[in-house]
Amino acid sequence: MPAVLENKVVTEVVPGPVSQASAKKLDAFFDARCVQLVVDYEKSNGNYLVDVDGNTYLDVYSQIASIPVGYNNTTLIAAAQSPEIVSALVNRPAIGNFPSNKWAEILETSLLKVAPTGLNRIFTAQSGSEANELAFKAAFMLYRRRERGEGVEWSKEEIESCLNNSKPGSPDLAVLSFRNSFHGRGFGSLSTTRSKAVHKLDIPAFNWPQASFPALKYPLEQHEAENAAEEKRCLEEVEKLITSWWCPVAALIIEPVQSEGGDNHASPAFFQGLRDITKKHNVTMIVDEVQTGFGATGKFWAHEGFNLTTPPDMVTFSKKAQTAGYYFSDSNLVPDKAYRQFNTWIGDAARVLMCRAVIQEILEKDLVAQTARVGDILFAELEKLAAKYPALVRNLRGKGKGTFIAFDTKDPAAFVKAIKSHGINMGTCGNETVRLRPMLIFEEAHVPILVNTMDKVLASA
Amino acid sequence: MPAVLENKVVTEVVPGPVSQASAKKLDAFFDARCVQLVVDYEKSNGNYLVDVDGNTYLDVYSQIASIPVGYNNTTLIAAAQSPEIVSALVNRPAIGNFPSNKWAEILETSLLKVAPTGLNRIFTAQSGSEANELAFKAAFMLYRRRERGEGVEWSKEEIESCLNNSKPGSPDLAVLSFRNSFHGRGFGSLSTTRSKAVHKLDIPAFNWPQASFPALKYPLEQHEAENAAEEKRCLEEVEKLITSWWCPVAALIIEPVQSEGGDNHASPAFFQGLRDITKKHNVTMIVDEVQTGFGATGKFWAHEGFNLTTPPDMVTFSKKAQTAGYYFSDSNLVPDKAYRQFNTWIGDAARVLMCRAVIQEILEKDLVAQTARVGDILFAELEKLAAKYPALVRNLRGKGKGTFIAFDTKDPAAFVKAIKSHGINMGTCGNETVRLRPMLIFEEAHVPILVNTMDKVLASA
Repeated sequence: MPAVLENKVVTEVVPGPVSQASAKKLDAFFDARCVQLVVDYEKSNGNYLVDVDGNTYLDVYSQIASIPVGYNNTTLIAAAQSPEIVSALVNRPAIGNFPSNKWAEILETSLLKVAPTGLNRIFTAQSGSEANELAFKAAFMLYRRRERGEGVEWSKEEIESCLNNSKPGSPDLAVLSFRNSFHGRGFGSLSTTRSKAVHKLDIPAFNWPQASFPALKYPLEQHEAENAAEEKRCLEEVEKLITSWWCPVAALIIEPVQSEGGDNHASPAFFQGLRDITKKHNVTMIVDEVQTGFGATGKFWAHEGFNLTTPPDMVTFSKKAQTAGYYFSDSNLVPDKAYRQFNTWIGDAARVLMCRAVIQEILEKDLVAQTARVGDILFAELEKLAAKYPALVRNLRGKGKGTFIAFDTKDPAAFVKAIKSHGINMGTCGNETVRLRPMLIFEEAHVPILVNTMDKVLASA
Repeated sequence: MPAVLENKVVTEVVPGPVSQASAKKLDAFFDARCVQLVVDYEKSNGNYLVDVDGNTYLDVYSQIASIPVGYNNTTLIAAAQSPEIVSALVNRPAIGNFPSNKWAEILETSLLKVAPTGLNRIFTAQSGSEANELAFKAAFMLYRRRERGEGVEWSKEEIESCLNNSKPGSPDLAVLSFRNSFHGRGFGSLSTTRSKAVHKLDIPAFNWPQASFPALKYPLEQHEAENAAEEKRCLEEVEKLITSWWCPVAALIIEPVQSEGGDNHASPAFFQGLRDITKKHNVTMIVDEVQTGFGATGKFWAHEGFNLTTPPDMVTFSKKAQTAGYYFSDSNLVPDKAYRQFNTWIGDAARVLMCRAVIQEILEKDLVAQTARVGDILFAELEKLAAKYPALVRNLRGKGKGTFIAFDTKDPAAFVKAIKSHGINMGTCGNETVRLRPMLIFEEAHVPILVNTMDKVLASA
């Protein structure tokens, strides 16, 4: 049994001297400027991260929201030691050409078990960026297939021009995204990312449209009319962009909660409106659940809470899934010919097997319901802090969204630095926001540890 | 001990009925139209692939050139069972923020041990496409950094315009690639891929230049003057494109042997010429060793054979490495600020640990030298076949390049289908080419098996 951990910082500064020396050594051959802590993962356990200086942190950042069920989770350890995963690691197949005889069953007992309602097909990938770009490509191929006409063969001109990156083979088609969105860092996904200059500067981008994401006022119950008007304005802007952009808008991508961009929420009505507009204009609707998926909002998929009239066309995932890819339903999103949506590995069966263990753990321990319940308790406590420090805890948001909670403060980086020195590992997002991203195993017992430490740090701010 | 395998087909057709049924089942939720065989990886061993119908193939395709040291390699199995890899699978870190205390050592004892001469820094990734796009981004940031002036801060206009995908923040900058090249399928990498319409059609692309890749005539020794003139023509075209393209060309990317595009070779002099031109015009030279790297050409890195006056600026890798990323040296290719070249996972330590085992196996068993030696023997035998079937084995190429051998034939798909029914798994590339991609453990004893079967198939063609 591992030692029961509690948050405790033993060094004078964080990161401590061993972390600093270790990062410096790494920096000789690997960019280590972003290193926050060098970690001893063998000693880390459950919700607690232990660094090389012997400091222990309650981790409510979870590797940028990507650790689902805790460090050294025993179900995951068993999966990682299974003969199946050894084979997947050693005999890595080109899954599209030479799948293992176990691949169908692996998918059926893992990702397909938690497929979003209405979406029964999957394409596996290795990162959220890749998943989104694969989704874009599927949407573009569908758009051109409809335009070309079902069953119409590719023309010689199309075939030749695409090799030259020219029209008509390489068409001008766009993906609409939203201000402050984050959808990844590849050249296509980055063209839909609108969060920060540090993500985008100096990188060529496609001339694709961005719409306003609703800027809601908090507390929501005090600003109902204003917020409804704001969402209406944004929906009108979306429709206007779709109908007036210089080139066709083939797809729209949106996060259920804008995460990197500052934890920006919108109402179910807004997402219902988007579904209606995209249906009306034959725009493929892609819901990017890379950060929201796999339970953190108190639902397995955050968009389940939106009660859309029809499911989104595609849902992308990564992070807590420990693998990546996209779900879809419309068989037209399977390209007309083989090898159009293809690459050597098409994901990693070893990582899908780890995902299966994550799903097993989530379902057996009912961790989505736990996250919903604990999230409500946590939110209520944070409301008290917001009342106590109204200047320092502003726009508290994420009520009823599990532990997917955030607030604005004047200097989020300073807050996170300060609380780290008290043994809480936390992250920021947007320009003025502190975000909470506990794991799904965050329990009621952790709430006072977190809230009392926040209280202490806020009191001395 | 596993049974000693030999190639043997027991079904009337390939793929056999179990493979076909299994693929059909998979196709209900996962596009299975590209499935060639459904494989029993537990029974596969060394150079031999065993399918679910009990057919055994000598595998000279190797999962699209990505299996390095054989199925169920014992060194790799030991690595896959190690406590270190279990921890890397279970506790997947955001490596840029929270690297493990073992990450530096893992890199030092794996990828850095085989770093190309002169390139001492690394950025890890998950696929060849991603590695190339990360390299492009580094090149673009370097270009703009030089243009902006060292130490000059980003302007307000740059910061704001990039969020809108507009100039000057999102500049018009290009990567030059070559006709018939393949560099991946992301939106940036696909814009440099020029191999086939099936890879590119309907996907928006950047307006970037492509130069002619030398079309050499074989046998080389009979066409020296013509080939030298062709390479000179191509070099002049490259320089003209760099100096006259509508926007600045920040980088050039090239494969040491164009692989997907038809196994097209060029001489060391051609690559030396490219190095000179890129140096002269401050164009970042990226060598894409995704398919050629890790020994298959009889050198660890294929570009080692080019005797470039200075190393390329970046070298990308994936496939046989079982992980991906890029090497570089110039510290200016580390962006001016942190978080510009970043993502959640920055590769996968579990896959780098598998790569460490691959490297260990390659070095301990001297598999690069073996590949060079066996490749020479194989090439000599294939020359005899080419002499025997001059109409069916044309433009035999890859002499002195290990087992990285290819030839043109009138119907490569039919040839590969026919030889598969004799228990050899082989692949095609380009439009008229059969390519050999044995693993590094392909031995002299396998040469007659391969060559005699080819002889049999050619005789009945």
